[in-house]
Amino acid sequence: MILTVTLNAALDLTYRVPHLVPHASHRVREVTERPGGKGLNVARVLGALGFSTTVTGFVGGETGRVLRALLAANAEAEAEAEAEKEGAEGPAGGGTPRVTDALVQVAGRTRRTVGVVDETTGDTTQLNEPGPHITPEEWDGFLTFYRELLGRGPAAVALCGSLPPGVPVGAYATLVREARTARIPVLLDTSGEPLRRGLAARPDIVKPNAEELAGITGTAEPLRAARAAQRRGAHAVAASLGADGMLLVAQDGAWSAAVPERLAGNPTGAGDSAVAGLLSGLAEDLPWPDRLARAVALSAATVRSPVAGEFDEATYAQLLPSVRVRKAETP
Amino acid sequence: MILTVTLNAALDLTYRVPHLVPHASHRVREVTERPGGKGLNVARVLGALGFSTTVTGFVGGETGRVLRALLAANAEAEAEAEAEKEGAEGPAGGGTPRVTDALVQVAGRTRRTVGVVDETTGDTTQLNEPGPHITPEEWDGFLTFYRELLGRGPAAVALCGSLPPGVPVGAYATLVREARTARIPVLLDTSGEPLRRGLAARPDIVKPNAEELAGITGTAEPLRAARAAQRRGAHAVAASLGADGMLLVAQDGAWSAAVPERLAGNPTGAGDSAVAGLLSGLAEDLPWPDRLARAVALSAATVRSPVAGEFDEATYAQLLPSVRVRKAETP
Repeated sequence: MILTVTLNAALDLTYRVPHLVPHASHRVREVTERPGGKGLNVARVLGALGFSTTVTGFVGGETGRVLRALLAANAEAEAEAEAEKEGAEGPAGGGTPRVTDALVQVAGRTRRTVGVVDETTGDTTQLNEPGPHITPEEWDGFLTFYRELLGRGPAAVALCGSLPPGVPVGAYATLVREARTARIPVLLDTSGEPLRRGLAARPDIVKPNAEELAGITGTAEPLRAARAAQRRGAHAVAASLGADGMLLVAQDGAWSAAVPERLAGNPTGAGDSAVAGLLSGLAEDLPWPDRLARAVALSAATVRSPVAGEFDEATYAQLLPSVRVRKAETP
Repeated sequence: MILTVTLNAALDLTYRVPHLVPHASHRVREVTERPGGKGLNVARVLGALGFSTTVTGFVGGETGRVLRALLAANAEAEAEAEAEKEGAEGPAGGGTPRVTDALVQVAGRTRRTVGVVDETTGDTTQLNEPGPHITPEEWDGFLTFYRELLGRGPAAVALCGSLPPGVPVGAYATLVREARTARIPVLLDTSGEPLRRGLAARPDIVKPNAEELAGITGTAEPLRAARAAQRRGAHAVAASLGADGMLLVAQDGAWSAAVPERLAGNPTGAGDSAVAGLLSGLAEDLPWPDRLARAVALSAATVRSPVAGEFDEATYAQLLPSVRVRKAETP
């Protein structure tokens, strides 16, 4: 089992409008709702790859209720599809759900995010609500439960996304230390001060994008910046470079990887798919270049998918062998 | 009691963002949620004016649950404020709620609307979800309940807003006829084909804005268009002309009214406040010029209010005596 932590989980809404014009009124043609927040997205991709995952973090209010209901419905649909694929004739809903809900209930309300897709330009405009306020007691309760989850022996832990109000800025540093004490490999995917603090706790992997990396190191050149982040504490730094693929700096080498052709599509969720690729390779103890290839192929298959944030399995299978992994040169 | 009907009720969300830029990602600084849909807005204004109202229409899903909880919380807060104002020492929550929830539960989910307020420009960009699909059985059930509500003897009925999917386009014509059969004055505030059909059922008042009026009559000149709408069946036509105030064509005369100075502010909800003004005058059987003055003053007090869709009571009290009502000349 792989554990993903999403402290600021969200109910993701996607609105399709013919054309978004500021100050105008728009009829939304289509509304989709799904569980959101980076760790939940990562878990969905891992589930599709055949890994069982447990998701934790905070959830509350009516939006939280909808989020959990959607998670349960997805798990059921997946188990049924799986049972069908295997030709099993067991009762409907049989099979093991791939994503287990271990979210922690809080008094506040789970935030919504609204992605407004402009059908004329294809662009997405994103509106992200702030998260619920977490009390010190809720945070303490979470820490206790997190230790219990680590005790269940996950193959890896991913700590993902922003912190909701009230959670201490050093939260990820605490969660990284707990995982390391329990000898469970830990990946951190966040930005700003929570990333800076988290680095000092020596996570196994951090996965910033180029902008986040420049933000904490003050260096725009990716390889130099990745090495700087590594010196601050991370064992390995996997930096996503958008259409240019990814760069990985580990203790035994540095590599860059990309798909042969630049892809057009929607980059929503590409970073979360990359995290899922890295985690799956970490859980299977693959060599770094193989982990990187998975991350890049999954990320590209997500950009190509017609549904934002989903990845296209056939595209992934086709792209994986074509990913070019090269030793990165010290600049 | 005044009855307002909102077939396509909504949970209204307001998002404040520093500046809305299409294709960018935005942190929402502040989220507010409130019961929405024209008839619910009208009821809130009537409540603030001291009229007790009953609201009906369709409600469903988690968003519907939030809407009802907000309605109940507002009613409680209002009753408490009222009890305090009267110096009553009764138990908390005493007093009569001004807005009574008579919404009808359906299987579908109440829509959301998202108003994105750009704090730099002050503009609002509106995103309106489609409503829930109403089944023929749900519509029949509503009709039966509506007749029962009419049997409770409301002083007036207001039929407000768009129709959710599944409701027959002639729905308002049916509801107007039922009210007229029960000898209850009925106001219709909608647009397009539902307005066109509703007119033929001879409502006491219709309240289109200039654009809606032009849309159904093909005439851009407001007085001419209002007379055309009257010929199509309405006993009186009250047309809102934005910053130019309102125009009213009744069987015994035509008047225009405006506040002395043009107002800067947010026009959200100004039309609903105007409907509340007309209804309150209808319920008290005031002469037309007085109804019109109330509608114009309430509308202006709503534009001036710092909170979108609310009206400022002090501004209303101050503006009401200043409204200029003039006989309108036949163009």
